[in-house]
Amino acid sequence: MDESELPRQWYNIQADMINKPLPLLNPATKEPLTAEDLAHIFAAECAKQELDQEHAWIDIPEEVLERYKYYRSTPLVRAYALEKALGTPAHIYFKNESVNPLGSHKINSALPQCYYCKQEGTTNVTTETGAGQWGAALSYAAKAFGLECAVYQVKISMQQKPYRSSIMRTFGATVEGSPSMSTRAGKDIITRDPLHPGSLGTAISEAVELATTTPNCKYTLGSVMSHVSLHQTVIGLEAEKQMEKAGEYPDTIIACFGGGSNFGGLAFPFMRHTIKEGKKIDFIAAEPSSCPKLTHGKFEYDFGDEAGYTPLLPMYTLGHEFKPANIHAGGLRYHGAGTIVSQLLKDGYMRAVDIPQTESFAAGLLFAQTESIIPAPESCHAIAATIREAKKCIETGEEKVILFNLSGHGLIDMTAYDSYLNGDLTDPEFKG
Amino acid sequence: MDESELPRQWYNIQADMINKPLPLLNPATKEPLTAEDLAHIFAAECAKQELDQEHAWIDIPEEVLERYKYYRSTPLVRAYALEKALGTPAHIYFKNESVNPLGSHKINSALPQCYYCKQEGTTNVTTETGAGQWGAALSYAAKAFGLECAVYQVKISMQQKPYRSSIMRTFGATVEGSPSMSTRAGKDIITRDPLHPGSLGTAISEAVELATTTPNCKYTLGSVMSHVSLHQTVIGLEAEKQMEKAGEYPDTIIACFGGGSNFGGLAFPFMRHTIKEGKKIDFIAAEPSSCPKLTHGKFEYDFGDEAGYTPLLPMYTLGHEFKPANIHAGGLRYHGAGTIVSQLLKDGYMRAVDIPQTESFAAGLLFAQTESIIPAPESCHAIAATIREAKKCIETGEEKVILFNLSGHGLIDMTAYDSYLNGDLTDPEFKG
Repeated sequence: MDESELPRQWYNIQADMINKPLPLLNPATKEPLTAEDLAHIFAAECAKQELDQEHAWIDIPEEVLERYKYYRSTPLVRAYALEKALGTPAHIYFKNESVNPLGSHKINSALPQCYYCKQEGTTNVTTETGAGQWGAALSYAAKAFGLECAVYQVKISMQQKPYRSSIMRTFGATVEGSPSMSTRAGKDIITRDPLHPGSLGTAISEAVELATTTPNCKYTLGSVMSHVSLHQTVIGLEAEKQMEKAGEYPDTIIACFGGGSNFGGLAFPFMRHTIKEGKKIDFIAAEPSSCPKLTHGKFEYDFGDEAGYTPLLPMYTLGHEFKPANIHAGGLRYHGAGTIVSQLLKDGYMRAVDIPQTESFAAGLLFAQTESIIPAPESCHAIAATIREAKKCIETGEEKVILFNLSGHGLIDMTAYDSYLNGDLTDPEFKG
Repeated sequence: MDESELPRQWYNIQADMINKPLPLLNPATKEPLTAEDLAHIFAAECAKQELDQEHAWIDIPEEVLERYKYYRSTPLVRAYALEKALGTPAHIYFKNESVNPLGSHKINSALPQCYYCKQEGTTNVTTETGAGQWGAALSYAAKAFGLECAVYQVKISMQQKPYRSSIMRTFGATVEGSPSMSTRAGKDIITRDPLHPGSLGTAISEAVELATTTPNCKYTLGSVMSHVSLHQTVIGLEAEKQMEKAGEYPDTIIACFGGGSNFGGLAFPFMRHTIKEGKKIDFIAAEPSSCPKLTHGKFEYDFGDEAGYTPLLPMYTLGHEFKPANIHAGGLRYHGAGTIVSQLLKDGYMRAVDIPQTESFAAGLLFAQTESIIPAPESCHAIAATIREAKKCIETGEEKVILFNLSGHGLIDMTAYDSYLNGDLTDPEFKG
C-alpha cells in the first residue's frame, strides 16, 4: 500500500449510527456531560471527538500523519499456513498490527492523544495499562511529543510481564503498580483488600486521580472511550483497501475485546456499509470466558473505574467492582465495554463469543507455529474465535473470507506460553 | 520494494576475492577439508557452498524463496529522528532486520539450512545459540520444514534472557543450557570449571557432538561459516536496490560483529564493487571491547569451538579457550571470526572498532527513544559505531551517508536495559 493511499481521516461511526450511544452522565447530577466537562481530564480535542455524533470523517492532523507514516500501513496477511494446518476451505486474513512500534495497535491512538495534549499546552500525561501494550505505546508517544509520562500498571500484569515496565522505563516513563499507595483511590482499595491484584478499573481510578490533582496533567486512555476507537479506525480503513487489492471481501470480521478499541478500529469502517447499505458481515468480538461483559454483562449505566471517579457510561458491564481473574490477557481484564460497541451489540449489528484461557493459548501456539508470529494473549482470543469459524467451514464446505485483527505480539508474554506448555494454565470460572 | 525485485540469488564473495580464504584443515592430518568431509556434520549443499570459490551467484531454491516472500524485503529506513537528536549532517539509514519472523536476521539462513537438510533426508537438526536469536530462528525453520530441533543455549544467556528459551519451546524445540551434562564435551568443561557461564564455543562443541553421535542428525549454525554469510547476502542485495531508490549510496557501512553473518550479509554485496570497481566504502565491523577478536586477536588457524571438535579455521581469534565476559550481547561472545571476513580484514578491505558495553546501551537507548525500536544488545554495537561516525561528521560538516544493519530487536533483552537504566551495567575489561 503506497504512502499516498494511507487514510487521511478517521471514521466516526457515531455519525452514521441509527441509535446513537446514550450520553455520558455526571454521577452527581445525572446530567449529560458536555465536551467542556470532559476536557477537565482529557485533551479538549479528544473530549470534542468523544461526543461528536455529527461528523462521519475527522481529519488526522498533519503531525500525526507524519508519525503514522513511520510505520503504517501495516500488512494484511493471508494465513495460508494456518488454513492448511486446519484443513479449512475458509480464506483467513489478518491485519498485522503486531509490527507497529511497541508491538501493538495501541500506538495509533497514543500518537494523536499526545499530539493534542502537546498542542493544548499540557506538559504531563498519565494513564492506566494492563498488559502494558498501551502504557508502552503512550510512553513512546509522550517522548515523541516531549511530554512527561506516568503510568499505573495493573499489579498482577506487572508481575506477569516484568519486561513491559522495563520498556516503558526505556522510553522515559514513570511506572507504578496499581493499586498503589500513591493515590487516595489506591490506598482505599489496598485497605479494603491488601492482596488486590489490580485491574484496569483500579488503574484508571489512580490515573484519573493523578490527572485531576496535578497541574497541567491530562489523563489519556487506551480503549473504551469513543475517541480511542475513532483513532483506531486507520486499521479498518487500510484493511478495506487491502482486501480490495486482494480481490476479496470479508464475510466475517473478528477481534478480541477488552474495551473495544482494536475491535472498533477494524470493524467500524466495514460496519458503515452494513449500516448504510445493508451489507451482511458477521462481526464477532472475542472476550475471555472469565471476564465476559458482552456475553454475560448487563446493559446499564456504570462507572468506568473501580473507585467511581469517571462519568457514568451506558454500557455492557459486569459491575465496576468486578474483580477479573488473573488471566494472562491483561488487556481484556476490564468490567465494561465502550459505549458505541455496547449500543451496536444491543442493536444486533454484532455478536460476541467468550473463549476459555487454554483454548486461546492452544490457538496462539498453532498460529505461532504456522505463521511465525507469537501472538499477544489478547490476540489469541481473536485467533481462537477465527479457528472456531474456520472449522465450521470444514463442515459446511463454505469458502468464507474471515478477517481478524492481530492486535499485538506476545514476546513480552512468554511466561504465559511457558505456563501453557508446562500444563499449568487454568480456565478460571466466571463468577457473575 | 516489489516481490518481483527480491533477490533470486545469493552473492558469493569468495568467487570475487583476490586473496581467497585459506582452506579449512583437518586437525589430525592438517590436510585441507573437502566438501565431502564437511558433509559429515553439515547438509551436503551447505558443505558445497562453504568451499565454493568459483560461482559468484548461487540460486536460492524456490521453496526458500517462497518462505522469504513471507517477510522480505525488510524496510530500509532513514533515521531522521536519530539524525536530529545528534545534530549531525550525516544521512543515517538502517536496514531493519528486526521485523523478521523471530526478530532478527538469523531466519535468512535458518530457512535454507533446514530446507537443504530436509531435501537430503535429514530428520533432526541441532545447533548452538547465544542470546537465542539463532536458536529461535532455527526452531521456527525446523518446524516449517518438519524437522526435529535441539538447541544448546549458552547458559549465561539462558539466565539473562529466559524468554528466548520459551520462544524456542513454543516452536517445539528442545533447549539445553551449555555447558550441560548431556554431552562428553559439556561434562569435560563442567568438570574443569563447574561455574563456566558457557560461550558460543562451548555450545558449538555440544551441538557438534550431538550431531555426530545421533543418527540422521545434522549440525547447523548461525554465523562464522561462509555459507551462513552467503545466505545473509539477501540483506545487502536488497539494501543496494533500496539505497538506489532513495537516491543515495553509502559512504560507510556498519554492522555489529559476532561471527560475521550479519556483517557479511549487509557488506559483501556492496564490497563486490570495491573489489571489482575500486568503489570507496568504509566498512566497519563493531565488536564488544571485552571480546575483541578483530581488533586484538591474532590471524591464525584455530578451532571454532571450545572442545576442539571443529575443523581448524584460518581466522582472527582470541584462542578457542577464551572465556568471554558476561556481557548482554550474547551473540557477540565468540572468540573467532569467519574465514572470509578474516581474510578481508587482513587485506585491508574493512576495519573494526570495539565498543564498551555501556556505550552500546547508551546508543541503543537513544535509538529506541528516537526511532521507536528497542534494539538487540548486539545491534547496539552497530548503532554506537554509527553514532561515533555521525558525530565526526558534525566536526567535519560532511553529509556522509551511513548505512547500518539493525540485526534484531531487544524485546527479549529488557533485563539488560533494566541494568543499564539502574546504573548496574559494567564495562568488563578485555584480558587477552
